[in-house]
Amino acid sequence: MSETVKYFLDEKRIPKFWYNLVADLPTPPPPVLHPGTHQPVGPADLEALFPMSLILQEVSKEREIEIPEPVRTIYRQWRPSPLFRARRLEKALDTPARIYYKYEGVSPAGSHKPNTAVPQAFFNKEAGIKKIATETGAGQWGSSLAFAGALFGIDVQVFMVRVSYDQKPYRRALMETYGARCVASPSNETQAGRDILAKRPNHPGSLGIAISEAVEVAAQRKDTNYALGSVLNHVLLHQTVVGLEAMEQMTMADDSPDILVGCTGGGSNFGGLVFPFLGAQLRGGKKVRVIAVEPAACPSLTRGKFAYDFGDTAHLTPLTKMHTLGSTFTPPGFHSGGLRYHGMAPLVSHVQDLGLIEAVAYHQTTCFAAGVQFARAEGILPAPEANHAIRAAIDEALKCKVEGVSRAILFNLCGHGHFDMQAYMDYTAGKLVDQKLDEGELAMALAGLPSVKA
Amino acid sequence: MSETVKYFLDEKRIPKFWYNLVADLPTPPPPVLHPGTHQPVGPADLEALFPMSLILQEVSKEREIEIPEPVRTIYRQWRPSPLFRARRLEKALDTPARIYYKYEGVSPAGSHKPNTAVPQAFFNKEAGIKKIATETGAGQWGSSLAFAGALFGIDVQVFMVRVSYDQKPYRRALMETYGARCVASPSNETQAGRDILAKRPNHPGSLGIAISEAVEVAAQRKDTNYALGSVLNHVLLHQTVVGLEAMEQMTMADDSPDILVGCTGGGSNFGGLVFPFLGAQLRGGKKVRVIAVEPAACPSLTRGKFAYDFGDTAHLTPLTKMHTLGSTFTPPGFHSGGLRYHGMAPLVSHVQDLGLIEAVAYHQTTCFAAGVQFARAEGILPAPEANHAIRAAIDEALKCKVEGVSRAILFNLCGHGHFDMQAYMDYTAGKLVDQKLDEGELAMALAGLPSVKA
Repeated sequence: MSETVKYFLDEKRIPKFWYNLVADLPTPPPPVLHPGTHQPVGPADLEALFPMSLILQEVSKEREIEIPEPVRTIYRQWRPSPLFRARRLEKALDTPARIYYKYEGVSPAGSHKPNTAVPQAFFNKEAGIKKIATETGAGQWGSSLAFAGALFGIDVQVFMVRVSYDQKPYRRALMETYGARCVASPSNETQAGRDILAKRPNHPGSLGIAISEAVEVAAQRKDTNYALGSVLNHVLLHQTVVGLEAMEQMTMADDSPDILVGCTGGGSNFGGLVFPFLGAQLRGGKKVRVIAVEPAACPSLTRGKFAYDFGDTAHLTPLTKMHTLGSTFTPPGFHSGGLRYHGMAPLVSHVQDLGLIEAVAYHQTTCFAAGVQFARAEGILPAPEANHAIRAAIDEALKCKVEGVSRAILFNLCGHGHFDMQAYMDYTAGKLVDQKLDEGELAMALAGLPSVKA
Repeated sequence: MSETVKYFLDEKRIPKFWYNLVADLPTPPPPVLHPGTHQPVGPADLEALFPMSLILQEVSKEREIEIPEPVRTIYRQWRPSPLFRARRLEKALDTPARIYYKYEGVSPAGSHKPNTAVPQAFFNKEAGIKKIATETGAGQWGSSLAFAGALFGIDVQVFMVRVSYDQKPYRRALMETYGARCVASPSNETQAGRDILAKRPNHPGSLGIAISEAVEVAAQRKDTNYALGSVLNHVLLHQTVVGLEAMEQMTMADDSPDILVGCTGGGSNFGGLVFPFLGAQLRGGKKVRVIAVEPAACPSLTRGKFAYDFGDTAHLTPLTKMHTLGSTFTPPGFHSGGLRYHGMAPLVSHVQDLGLIEAVAYHQTTCFAAGVQFARAEGILPAPEANHAIRAAIDEALKCKVEGVSRAILFNLCGHGHFDMQAYMDYTAGKLVDQKLDEGELAMALAGLPSVKA
């Protein structure tokens, strides 16, 4: 039988707790520093931007953090998400590998992002917040927060990286249909935006700039908070529902992954899948090979420096130690807008530093080739970001074929590509280009890293 | 608790049989006639276009027709589809109605169409067919058959109505990603297409014309068949998995529908949902009010004639008795491309003639308003076709509010609108127009109906 198999988990099995990897790490991640004093920040320093409940999750060392029942109830609309054994893809590749994927595109907004958008909106609502400002790249995060905002009656303002705003009008239309307000970044609505536009009126934007704008808006008003779709500990925490469900589903499949694969932009779909498995390994369980896959044109884990840096371009955020290309680095406008961030989640950076994971970088054309092969075999059209994970999973499966060994490979199919069809049309027409990393700009951005005593 | 609830059915409960309404009808539907002789056609007359297994389903009077196990196995990738109680929408409407929806957008191609595309590809493969030619309007059907063709290694050629081909390049990109070949219709590839282009070079196309082209291609080669995405008995038969699952899910919800709603283009998502409920009613079960919702700009059930007509414009198909606007009628280019067909499924037409269902027609703007309200409450962005069903369901729910009664309303949310964002952008920008039916063209098309003694 070479038919794709779905492993379904009853909705009673939606996790009751998020999993916090920090509890199981041999050393804690380096502290977050105040941008002025370079001293560790305390919870109070973050109160202008986040509700205290999320700040406490951000700094928590508890292994399990309870998922509020209203959040679980909303999760139930699309969770547990399915886990598939990709038998049709295995057959197409003629590989002895067992390929599994967890599919997060079943959420209303079409990606893993609602896993954290919903609790973030919930905790903000509980704290009496009326409006949330945020940034988005490709629009997966912006549309997810717009969805969550609609559920809780919170106004959402999204600063969308200009290159994506122009490339993906339909993602913007989705946010607007949910009732959010979407602004191209850099914009004239903030000082951070105006400063950039004064220097370069046609600036294509970056996640770092959009974050600056959203943070500036949130810091100005008591009833307005900021929300981030990746990078931060509490965001990765919320995403662990993905890996926790996948562990149960792999048990249902009577199998266990030898290799885990996820694409990495800020690190949240990757961390969400792999942290529960890494935790089990750290507690004495099976050793798993973990591969983070990033775009060669924005390669923070493979080419960045593990150093203290700002999360944004205008330097309004605290300093975190992470793999970074420098906060002024502007990646080229390739199609995986969700992977165009100069930094990497501090927790993902820390586990790479500890040698618990490895990283690999791919150019976009080869990733789209993998995505099309996947779509023809499995029927699901993946997001360009997810194509990176598929590329690496297929390459590992082909290695199994060469070596004549069967390994279980599990990857996170973090979203569908229904709003990314221009990229597929460009690929099919042979117009997709592999943009080179600007080595000069990278060197300059790295040279500009703030000097912080570790 | 005002949270939307999902009723999930274990995959073991995917139906083992399709349900054939003909077995329970008080009178059989009128026979299909040969276009030349006006005598009833036999199975052999259809062999140039369809495999015998599908022809036998088309004329079957058996109540249950077994679903082949390989088809059930593929169904398992996304079936059973979820049924939701729309509590958030109920709250937004402040209605005592209980609103339920069956969601078919979870399939890989994003609509109910793969429910029949997969068995059609399966039976054609069994019959040794190498290529299938078909038509598509909005592209829901074309992309579903492209998906099914990829699974079974069958070449798929899609004649796509030109206005949709131009309006929806991304639907086309999806078909091409699955490996199908997509051609704008009318095209120069067939005599039927060339004849139309000779008279009107900029013809926007219609489903009737695209059917003529696909039938012409299929009739020419022994290894090539034709497939239709709606209208025919066997297509509606395959779609009954929707209603059969919904019956079980309503039982899980400890409820039973008072009102059933579906949008109607060719009639397949509508028939798929309502036929199993109608059958139960005809066997002595609960009486249910059934509402077919059609576009006011292409209103076959509310303005068409119940008469023998051709299924296509070039008159290559047999004659079927159905509600029709005339086979030469070209509807305006509104956004629900899936509802732009001049005729209606003979079985749906027959049950309307028997007084078992009622029909209502809406203009598109009010349907989009309903779709946006639905998206903000439930998070799912519906296809423009499905917005028609939502409009009627909301109107019935608002009637419940006025009357102070609680009724259970179940509608078929037949697909997502991820490839229809231009329509949502137009709606948000206030640019969507309610196209008027061309009364002159309708009168002329109706006057041209073939004269057949009933």
